[in-house]
Amino acid sequence: MTKKNSLNAIEVQCLRVSLGLNQAQVAQITKATEEDVQAWETGEQLIPEVAQKKLLEIDDIIEMQVLNTCDGIESLFKSEPKRRLSFVVYPTQAIYTQYNPEFISSLPFTELYNTSTWRIKKECKLVLEVDVTLVSFDVDSYKAFREQEGLGESRENRAKWAATQI
Amino acid sequence: MTKKNSLNAIEVQCLRVSLGLNQAQVAQITKATEEDVQAWETGEQLIPEVAQKKLLEIDDIIEMQVLNTCDGIESLFKSEPKRRLSFVVYPTQAIYTQYNPEFISSLPFTELYNTSTWRIKKECKLVLEVDVTLVSFDVDSYKAFREQEGLGESRENRAKWAATQI
Repeated sequence: MTKKNSLNAIEVQCLRVSLGLNQAQVAQITKATEEDVQAWETGEQLIPEVAQKKLLEIDDIIEMQVLNTCDGIESLFKSEPKRRLSFVVYPTQAIYTQYNPEFISSLPFTELYNTSTWRIKKECKLVLEVDVTLVSFDVDSYKAFREQEGLGESRENRAKWAATQI
Repeated sequence: MTKKNSLNAIEVQCLRVSLGLNQAQVAQITKATEEDVQAWETGEQLIPEVAQKKLLEIDDIIEMQVLNTCDGIESLFKSEPKRRLSFVVYPTQAIYTQYNPEFISSLPFTELYNTSTWRIKKECKLVLEVDVTLVSFDVDSYKAFREQEGLGESRENRAKWAATQI
Protein backbone atom coordinates (compact mmCIF):
# COMPACT_ATOMS: atom_id res chain seq x y z
CA MET A 1 0.00 0.00 0.00
CA THR A 2 1.33 3.42 -0.89
CA LYS A 3 0.34 6.86 0.24
CA LYS A 4 -2.51 8.63 -1.54
CA ASN A 5 -1.28 10.43 -4.66
CA SER A 6 1.86 8.37 -4.52
CA LEU A 7 2.64 6.00 -7.38
CA ASN A 8 2.56 2.30 -6.68
CA ALA A 9 4.96 -0.20 -8.24
CA ILE A 10 2.93 -1.02 -11.33
CA GLU A 11 2.15 2.64 -11.93
CA VAL A 12 5.84 3.47 -12.03
CA GLN A 13 6.24 0.74 -14.63
CA CYS A 14 3.25 1.93 -16.67
CA LEU A 15 4.54 5.49 -16.56
CA ARG A 16 8.00 4.38 -17.69
CA VAL A 17 6.63 2.31 -20.56
CA SER A 18 4.30 5.09 -21.66
CA LEU A 19 7.31 7.42 -21.80
CA GLY A 20 9.13 4.89 -23.98
CA LEU A 21 12.01 4.61 -21.51
CA ASN A 22 13.92 1.56 -20.33
CA GLN A 23 14.96 0.96 -16.71
CA ALA A 24 18.51 2.20 -17.34
CA GLN A 25 17.20 5.51 -18.61
CA VAL A 26 14.88 5.91 -15.62
CA ALA A 27 17.83 5.16 -13.35
CA GLN A 28 19.86 7.88 -15.04
CA ILE A 29 17.03 10.42 -14.83
CA THR A 30 16.35 9.75 -11.15
CA LYS A 31 20.00 9.31 -10.18
CA ALA A 32 19.30 5.79 -8.95
CA THR A 33 20.71 2.43 -10.01
CA GLU A 34 19.04 0.03 -12.43
CA GLU A 35 18.60 -2.36 -9.47
CA ASP A 36 16.67 0.36 -7.64
CA VAL A 37 14.35 0.90 -10.59
CA GLN A 38 13.77 -2.83 -10.86
CA ALA A 39 12.96 -2.96 -7.12
CA TRP A 40 10.51 -0.03 -7.48
CA GLU A 41 8.69 -1.83 -10.25
CA THR A 42 8.38 -5.12 -8.39
CA GLY A 43 7.32 -3.37 -5.20
CA GLU A 44 10.36 -4.54 -3.24
CA GLN A 45 11.39 -0.96 -2.65
CA LEU A 46 9.38 2.25 -2.29
CA ILE A 47 9.97 4.85 -4.99
CA PRO A 48 11.47 8.00 -3.46
CA GLU A 49 9.14 10.94 -3.82
CA VAL A 50 11.75 12.99 -5.66
CA ALA A 51 12.10 10.25 -8.29
CA GLN A 52 8.32 10.06 -8.77
CA LYS A 53 8.15 13.80 -9.11
CA LYS A 54 10.85 13.82 -11.76
CA LEU A 55 9.10 11.20 -13.91
CA LEU A 56 5.68 12.82 -13.56
CA GLU A 57 7.25 16.13 -14.47
CA ILE A 58 8.57 14.69 -17.74
CA ASP A 59 5.13 13.29 -18.49
CA ASP A 60 3.65 16.76 -17.96
CA ILE A 61 6.34 18.50 -19.98
CA ILE A 62 5.58 16.32 -23.00
CA GLU A 63 1.87 17.07 -22.61
CA MET A 64 2.49 20.79 -22.32
CA GLN A 65 4.88 20.83 -25.25
CA VAL A 66 2.30 19.12 -27.44
CA LEU A 67 -0.45 21.52 -26.36
CA ASN A 68 1.65 24.67 -26.64
CA THR A 69 3.15 23.77 -29.98
CA CYS A 70 -0.23 22.92 -31.47
CA ASP A 71 -1.65 26.18 -30.13
CA GLY A 72 1.26 28.06 -31.69
CA ILE A 73 0.73 26.37 -35.03
CA GLU A 74 -2.99 27.09 -34.89
CA SER A 75 -2.46 30.83 -34.41
CA LEU A 76 0.22 30.87 -37.10
CA PHE A 77 -2.20 29.29 -39.53
CA LYS A 78 -5.00 31.71 -38.78
CA SER A 79 -3.17 34.33 -40.82
CA GLU A 80 -1.89 32.17 -43.65
CA PRO A 81 -3.21 29.22 -45.62
CA LYS A 82 -2.60 25.78 -44.18
CA ARG A 83 0.56 24.14 -45.36
CA ARG A 84 2.97 21.37 -44.69
CA LEU A 85 5.32 21.73 -41.76
CA SER A 86 8.53 20.00 -40.88
CA PHE A 87 9.94 19.31 -37.42
CA VAL A 88 13.52 18.41 -36.67
CA VAL A 89 14.08 15.30 -34.58
CA TYR A 90 17.44 14.04 -33.42
CA PRO A 91 18.48 10.52 -34.38
CA THR A 92 21.09 9.96 -31.66
CA GLN A 93 21.60 11.11 -28.10
CA ALA A 94 24.95 12.68 -29.05
CA ILE A 95 23.41 14.83 -31.79
CA TYR A 96 20.46 15.71 -29.55
CA THR A 97 22.78 16.75 -26.75
CA GLN A 98 24.94 18.84 -29.02
CA TYR A 99 22.26 20.61 -31.02
CA ASN A 100 19.36 20.77 -28.60
CA PRO A 101 20.92 21.43 -25.19
CA GLU A 102 18.06 23.67 -24.06
CA PHE A 103 15.85 20.59 -23.85
CA ILE A 104 18.27 18.29 -22.05
CA SER A 105 17.24 19.36 -18.57
CA SER A 106 13.51 18.95 -19.21
CA LEU A 107 13.52 16.03 -21.67
CA PRO A 108 16.89 14.37 -21.07
CA PHE A 109 16.65 11.70 -23.78
CA THR A 110 16.13 12.14 -27.48
CA GLU A 111 13.43 9.44 -27.25
CA LEU A 112 11.37 11.76 -25.05
CA TYR A 113 11.76 14.63 -27.46
CA ASN A 114 10.83 12.36 -30.33
CA THR A 115 7.78 11.01 -28.50
CA SER A 116 6.69 14.59 -28.04
CA THR A 117 7.16 15.45 -31.72
CA TRP A 118 5.29 12.30 -32.74
CA ARG A 119 2.34 13.43 -30.67
CA ILE A 120 2.55 16.94 -32.13
CA LYS A 121 2.44 15.41 -35.61
CA LYS A 122 -0.62 13.37 -34.67
CA GLU A 123 -2.44 16.23 -32.97
CA CYS A 124 -1.75 18.62 -35.85
CA LYS A 125 -3.18 16.14 -38.31
CA LEU A 126 -6.23 15.40 -36.19
CA VAL A 127 -7.12 18.82 -34.85
CA LEU A 128 -5.61 21.31 -37.28
CA GLU A 129 -5.49 19.23 -40.47
CA VAL A 130 -1.87 20.23 -40.87
CA ASP A 131 0.65 17.72 -42.16
CA VAL A 132 3.80 17.66 -40.07
CA THR A 133 6.74 15.69 -41.39
CA LEU A 134 9.37 14.68 -38.87
CA VAL A 135 12.83 15.16 -40.35
CA SER A 136 15.80 13.35 -38.92
CA PHE A 137 18.59 15.82 -38.31
CA ASP A 138 21.53 15.19 -40.65
CA VAL A 139 24.59 17.14 -39.54
CA ASP A 140 26.42 17.02 -42.89
CA SER A 141 23.45 18.00 -44.99
CA TYR A 142 22.62 20.81 -42.55
CA LYS A 143 26.19 22.15 -42.66
CA ALA A 144 26.19 22.12 -46.46
CA PHE A 145 22.87 23.99 -46.46
CA ARG A 146 24.16 26.62 -44.04
CA GLU A 147 27.27 27.15 -46.11
CA GLN A 148 25.29 27.48 -49.30
CA GLU A 149 22.84 29.95 -47.76
CA GLY A 150 25.43 31.78 -45.67
CA LEU A 151 23.57 31.05 -42.45
CA GLY A 152 24.78 30.67 -38.88
CA GLU A 153 23.76 27.89 -36.54
CA SER A 154 20.42 28.39 -34.85
CA ARG A 155 17.20 26.54 -34.12
CA GLU A 156 15.53 28.69 -36.74
CA ASN A 157 18.05 27.74 -39.39
CA ARG A 158 17.67 24.08 -38.51
CA ALA A 159 13.97 24.52 -39.18
CA LYS A 160 14.78 26.15 -42.52
CA TRP A 161 16.97 23.21 -43.44
CA ALA A 162 14.25 20.78 -42.40
CA ALA A 163 11.77 22.58 -44.66
CA THR A 164 14.02 21.75 -47.62
CA GLN A 165 13.76 18.04 -46.76
CA ILE A 166 10.05 17.56 -47.46
CA MET B 1 11.68 10.62 -49.87
CA THR B 2 8.46 8.79 -49.10
CA LYS B 3 4.97 9.12 -50.47
CA LYS B 4 2.63 11.70 -49.01
CA ASN B 5 0.87 10.35 -45.90
CA SER B 6 3.45 7.61 -45.74
CA LEU B 7 5.73 7.39 -42.71
CA ASN B 8 9.41 8.06 -43.22
CA ALA B 9 12.17 6.22 -41.37
CA ILE B 10 12.44 8.54 -38.37
CA GLU B 11 8.67 8.70 -38.04
CA VAL B 12 8.47 4.93 -37.75
CA GLN B 13 11.06 5.14 -34.99
CA CYS B 14 9.24 7.97 -33.20
CA LEU B 15 5.96 6.08 -33.42
CA ARG B 16 7.56 2.93 -32.02
CA VAL B 17 9.18 4.80 -29.13
CA SER B 18 5.98 6.67 -28.34
CA LEU B 19 4.20 3.31 -28.14
CA GLY B 20 6.84 2.06 -25.71
CA LEU B 21 7.76 -0.85 -27.98
CA ASN B 22 11.15 -2.26 -28.88
CA GLN B 23 12.16 -3.37 -32.37
CA ALA B 24 11.50 -7.04 -31.59
CA GLN B 25 7.92 -6.25 -30.58
CA VAL B 26 7.34 -4.20 -33.73
CA ALA B 27 8.73 -7.10 -35.76
CA GLN B 28 6.27 -9.45 -34.09
CA ILE B 29 3.32 -7.12 -34.63
CA THR B 30 4.11 -6.54 -38.29
CA LYS B 31 5.21 -10.12 -39.00
CA ALA B 32 8.62 -8.88 -40.07
CA THR B 33 12.11 -9.64 -38.76
CA GLU B 34 14.03 -7.44 -36.33
CA GLU B 35 16.49 -6.78 -39.17
CA ASP B 36 13.61 -5.45 -41.26
CA VAL B 37 12.50 -3.09 -38.50
CA GLN B 38 16.05 -1.86 -38.09
CA ALA B 39 16.28 -1.25 -41.83
CA TRP B 40 12.97 0.67 -41.80
CA GLU B 41 14.26 2.94 -39.06
CA THR B 42 17.57 3.70 -40.75
CA GLY B 43 15.86 4.27 -44.10
CA GLU B 44 17.64 1.38 -45.80
CA GLN B 45 14.31 -0.29 -46.50
CA LEU B 46 10.84 1.12 -47.17
CA ILE B 47 8.22 0.24 -44.57
CA PRO B 48 5.49 -1.85 -46.17
CA GLU B 49 2.18 -0.06 -46.14
CA VAL B 50 0.49 -2.88 -44.24
CA ALA B 51 3.08 -2.59 -41.44
CA GLN B 52 2.60 1.17 -41.19
CA LYS B 53 -1.14 0.71 -41.06
CA LYS B 54 -0.85 -1.80 -38.25
CA LEU B 55 1.29 0.50 -36.08
CA LEU B 56 -0.86 3.55 -36.74
CA GLU B 57 -3.92 1.49 -35.91
CA ILE B 58 -2.49 0.61 -32.49
CA ASP B 59 -1.74 4.28 -31.89
CA ASP B 60 -5.36 5.11 -32.70
CA ILE B 61 -6.76 2.27 -30.61
CA ILE B 62 -4.93 3.56 -27.53
CA GLU B 63 -6.26 7.05 -28.17
CA MET B 64 -9.80 5.77 -28.64
CA GLN B 65 -9.62 3.58 -25.56
CA VAL B 66 -8.52 6.55 -23.47
CA LEU B 67 -11.27 8.78 -24.84
CA ASN B 68 -14.03 6.18 -24.59
CA THR B 69 -13.10 5.05 -21.10
CA CYS B 70 -12.93 8.60 -19.80
CA ASP B 71 -16.29 9.37 -21.40
CA GLY B 72 -17.75 6.27 -19.74
CA ILE B 73 -16.38 7.27 -16.36
CA GLU B 74 -17.70 10.79 -16.79
CA SER B 75 -21.26 9.61 -17.41
CA LEU B 76 -21.01 7.11 -14.57
CA PHE B 77 -20.01 9.89 -12.21
CA LYS B 78 -22.79 12.21 -13.27
CA SER B 79 -25.21 10.09 -11.25
CA GLU B 80 -23.03 9.32 -8.23
CA PRO B 81 -20.47 11.22 -6.20
CA LYS B 82 -16.90 11.14 -7.43
CA ARG B 83 -14.87 8.37 -5.95
CA ARG B 84 -11.68 6.44 -6.35
CA LEU B 85 -11.48 3.92 -9.13
CA SER B 86 -9.18 0.99 -9.72
CA PHE B 87 -8.04 -0.46 -13.03
CA VAL B 88 -6.50 -3.85 -13.50
CA VAL B 89 -3.21 -3.99 -15.39
CA TYR B 90 -1.34 -7.13 -16.28
CA PRO B 91 2.24 -7.51 -15.06
CA THR B 92 3.40 -10.13 -17.57
CA GLN B 93 2.58 -11.01 -21.14
CA ALA B 94 1.54 -14.53 -20.07
CA ILE B 95 -1.01 -13.24 -17.56
CA TYR B 96 -2.22 -10.61 -20.01
CA THR B 97 -2.68 -13.23 -22.71
CA GLN B 98 -4.53 -15.60 -20.41
CA TYR B 99 -6.84 -13.13 -18.70
CA ASN B 100 -7.34 -10.44 -21.29
CA PRO B 101 -7.51 -12.29 -24.62
CA GLU B 102 -10.14 -9.93 -26.03
CA PHE B 103 -7.46 -7.24 -26.24
CA ILE B 104 -4.69 -9.33 -27.76
CA SER B 105 -5.69 -8.67 -31.35
CA SER B 106 -5.97 -4.90 -30.92
CA LEU B 107 -3.22 -4.26 -28.32
CA PRO B 108 -0.99 -7.34 -28.62
CA PHE B 109 1.41 -6.49 -25.80
CA THR B 110 0.68 -5.84 -22.16
CA GLU B 111 2.89 -2.74 -22.42
CA LEU B 112 0.41 -1.23 -24.88
CA TYR B 113 -2.52 -1.98 -22.61
CA ASN B 114 -0.61 -0.52 -19.68
CA THR B 115 0.31 2.61 -21.61
CA SER B 116 -3.35 3.03 -22.33
CA THR B 117 -4.36 2.62 -18.67
CA TRP B 118 -1.65 5.08 -17.62
CA ARG B 119 -3.11 7.66 -19.95
CA ILE B 120 -6.62 6.93 -18.65
CA LYS B 121 -5.36 7.50 -15.11
CA LYS B 122 -3.81 10.82 -16.14
CA GLU B 123 -6.81 12.00 -18.10
CA CYS B 124 -9.23 11.08 -15.31
CA LYS B 125 -7.19 13.05 -12.82
CA LEU B 126 -6.83 16.06 -15.07
CA VAL B 127 -10.26 16.29 -16.65
CA LEU B 128 -12.62 14.49 -14.26
CA GLU B 129 -10.76 14.88 -10.97
CA VAL B 130 -11.17 11.17 -10.40
CA ASP B 131 -8.34 9.21 -8.82
CA VAL B 132 -7.62 6.02 -10.72
CA THR B 133 -5.27 3.52 -9.10
CA LEU B 134 -3.67 0.97 -11.39
CA VAL B 135 -3.65 -2.42 -9.71
CA SER B 136 -1.27 -5.11 -10.84
CA PHE B 137 -3.19 -8.31 -11.41
CA ASP B 138 -2.22 -10.96 -8.86
CA VAL B 139 -3.55 -14.37 -9.87
CA ASP B 140 -3.33 -15.96 -6.40
CA SER B 141 -4.93 -13.09 -4.56
CA TYR B 142 -7.69 -12.91 -7.18
CA LYS B 143 -8.40 -16.64 -6.91
CA ALA B 144 -8.62 -16.41 -3.12
CA PHE B 145 -11.01 -13.47 -3.45
CA ARG B 146 -13.24 -15.33 -5.92
CA GLU B 147 -13.36 -18.37 -3.68
CA GLN B 148 -14.22 -16.31 -0.64
CA GLU B 149 -16.96 -14.40 -2.45
CA GLY B 150 -18.22 -17.36 -4.45
CA LEU B 151 -17.61 -15.60 -7.75
CA GLY B 152 -16.80 -16.92 -11.22
CA GLU B 153 -14.09 -15.56 -13.47
CA SER B 154 -15.04 -12.46 -15.41
CA ARG B 155 -13.73 -9.02 -16.24
CA GLU B 156 -16.30 -7.59 -13.85
CA ASN B 157 -15.08 -9.77 -11.00
CA ARG B 158 -11.48 -8.80 -11.70
CA ALA B 159 -12.59 -5.21 -11.30
CA LYS B 160 -14.27 -6.11 -7.99
CA TRP B 161 -11.06 -7.71 -6.79
CA ALA B 162 -9.06 -4.67 -7.86
CA ALA B 163 -11.38 -2.41 -5.86
CA THR B 164 -10.37 -4.31 -2.73
CA GLN B 165 -6.72 -3.49 -3.41
CA ILE B 166 -6.91 0.29 -2.94
